[in-house]
Amino acid sequence: MTADLPIIRLRPKSKPQAIRHGFPWVFADELVTDRRTRVIPPGSFAVLEDAERRPLGLVTVNPDSRIIARVMDPDPQARITRDWIAARLDRALALRARLFDRPFYRLVHAEADGLPGTIIDRFGDAAVIQPNAAWAERMVGEIAAALREVAGVATVILNGQGRARALEGLDERTEILSGAVDGPVEVPMNGAIYLADLTQGQKTGLFYDQRPNHAFAQRLAQGQRVLDVFSHVGGFGLAALAAGATHATCVDGSAAALELARGGARAMRAESRLTIRQGDAFEQMEALAAEGAQFDLVICDPPAFAPSKPALEAGLRAYERVAKLAAPLVAPGGYLGLCSCSHAADLNAFRNASARGIGRGGRRMQLLHTGQAGPDHPTLPQLAETGYLKALFFRLDG
Amino acid sequence: MTADLPIIRLRPKSKPQAIRHGFPWVFADELVTDRRTRVIPPGSFAVLEDAERRPLGLVTVNPDSRIIARVMDPDPQARITRDWIAARLDRALALRARLFDRPFYRLVHAEADGLPGTIIDRFGDAAVIQPNAAWAERMVGEIAAALREVAGVATVILNGQGRARALEGLDERTEILSGAVDGPVEVPMNGAIYLADLTQGQKTGLFYDQRPNHAFAQRLAQGQRVLDVFSHVGGFGLAALAAGATHATCVDGSAAALELARGGARAMRAESRLTIRQGDAFEQMEALAAEGAQFDLVICDPPAFAPSKPALEAGLRAYERVAKLAAPLVAPGGYLGLCSCSHAADLNAFRNASARGIGRGGRRMQLLHTGQAGPDHPTLPQLAETGYLKALFFRLDG
Repeated sequence: MTADLPIIRLRPKSKPQAIRHGFPWVFADELVTDRRTRVIPPGSFAVLEDAERRPLGLVTVNPDSRIIARVMDPDPQARITRDWIAARLDRALALRARLFDRPFYRLVHAEADGLPGTIIDRFGDAAVIQPNAAWAERMVGEIAAALREVAGVATVILNGQGRARALEGLDERTEILSGAVDGPVEVPMNGAIYLADLTQGQKTGLFYDQRPNHAFAQRLAQGQRVLDVFSHVGGFGLAALAAGATHATCVDGSAAALELARGGARAMRAESRLTIRQGDAFEQMEALAAEGAQFDLVICDPPAFAPSKPALEAGLRAYERVAKLAAPLVAPGGYLGLCSCSHAADLNAFRNASARGIGRGGRRMQLLHTGQAGPDHPTLPQLAETGYLKALFFRLDG
Repeated sequence: MTADLPIIRLRPKSKPQAIRHGFPWVFADELVTDRRTRVIPPGSFAVLEDAERRPLGLVTVNPDSRIIARVMDPDPQARITRDWIAARLDRALALRARLFDRPFYRLVHAEADGLPGTIIDRFGDAAVIQPNAAWAERMVGEIAAALREVAGVATVILNGQGRARALEGLDERTEILSGAVDGPVEVPMNGAIYLADLTQGQKTGLFYDQRPNHAFAQRLAQGQRVLDVFSHVGGFGLAALAAGATHATCVDGSAAALELARGGARAMRAESRLTIRQGDAFEQMEALAAEGAQFDLVICDPPAFAPSKPALEAGLRAYERVAKLAAPLVAPGGYLGLCSCSHAADLNAFRNASARGIGRGGRRMQLLHTGQAGPDHPTLPQLAETGYLKALFFRLDG
């Protein structure tokens, strides 16, 4: 039955139990790589066997990646067709339908949703696919067709940007696969309205992962003055305005992102309560301190300062500096939210850097809440230690 | 100015920086303990100095505890009076008033709220104090008076039970310090109504720490059949009923706790949707499996199986067994919530034990959400690694 697919085999010393218990990856050094293996085209499929030739499942192979094989299905007889993809999408959709009232969410979060290396964000009747594994790039047409069928979306965009694709040997490219894009999309979330630019923005246009952390900030925001540093399209700032903040100031380096923040505030009829400041976030924080500005709630959600292990030390210093510059901007007894989306900085390291920075900023603190990505970003427990998004909410001394 | 208080001093090798940066404890082996130190009465106050005789703050001393000194105030001139306590309570109250609409919450969470070793839970116009440090036991009258003044509560109960007191050399005792207790109190939380027995129950009568995890379970509960194992007074079960679960089954060893669960359901007019099963939770799960019972959402919130390091291995095996017994009770594509309130089992260890148990129960899984204690249980970042409450929400295979 498997004669039509190549067979790849684990080395005797690598542990097939991990795969049997759901670990989804095989690294290059765990595999017997002979001449035949090395010429398997990136993104094609194979049957994975253990050293005793017992099948472990159907995998996709990419000899150009450190993750040389990813488990597609524990059933070695499975075949990756549009129907197979549709069944995975169906299962992913059922979870989101239970969690959310409206169709705005991450629909597929890669391995944990059974579609390795594949990210799909949904924006009403539009969806953005990030094929970050070679098989998904190769089969993106089938994925898009299954997506239209299962989720009923009309517009499907391929967004091929970001670090993950380079690791798989894939080029950067963006393409509208079906439907049309007519300006930014209005995205309702936590009572706020965001504008997402699905073809020009960062990643898939909006960061759904911060949804529960926006919601936590909303509990601290009513009647308060709020500062959102590294605001992108206004994630925390617009959430605060939706929760009744008297005023929000959004700081970001990107004029385009701030224009989208302003557009969101306009759609919320809250434009008069929003101030935008464009410029380097560190410099802006120093300028605000020089002005003697203080806020009841300050949030800093910087880009990944420590995306990889070699960047860890410098990244932690940057997080500490963010905390140190932000702390004096918090009014007595006010609140400070610090976020990290760095894979390499684990929770303890990030919390220590943040606490050190706050202390060097001259403040004492309580830690109220540690947030993470929302449940439309599921993980496999085997990969959960790397949970990338951390949001720490502190209360500073009075 | 400090001549009226004894002075205690750190050893030359211990690090005063940690104290200066907010670490709240001094362990016995970090202190110069001479004849004078050893006779300081437990729960009295002293000035802590570093080895160079520079003051580090005002501390409370307990020579009977491994934590020989706890920082009360970084100002060595501070004096612990009813007014000092009232100022700390005021600050604690301001946080809860911001977070919650109604006065039902943990009002004081020990060190992080500036009242070392002191827990206070509020139930409307009643409050329960757990003085788990010698100073708080000695000054509980002043704490109660400040509490009545600041929070306006009438009834104040001293609940002196639990492991923490034994570590401080304090006896078990429960006493009504003011007001009167007339049966269980109705506690509104997440739209449910719980009955809390403030004088007879476990700890302070109700576990407020699970509030955000109850709320997460509610997102999965509408129209579903729910099983709440180790339910105590119905924490997850009543929350699920409030969120529109078709049915909830509560399993607990305590008939008294289950009666309170039934009373809560009655107050919610949801009694017809509640089933209670009294008995050993492991046996009850086996019995349910033998009956072929399945639920769309199963939650297990057992007592601390690994309260201390020596109990860790056995505790993790118990968590694994809970997961293994619970997994077959989850309907295809359903949800499983597993909780641990064990200090000694950290998140990674608990997650691994849970995932192993689910796997041995024959199921594959996604991890959706990792919950913790709510923000009325703040921590000091220096102590945050020990965050005791973990709630893992899994979705099992279809």
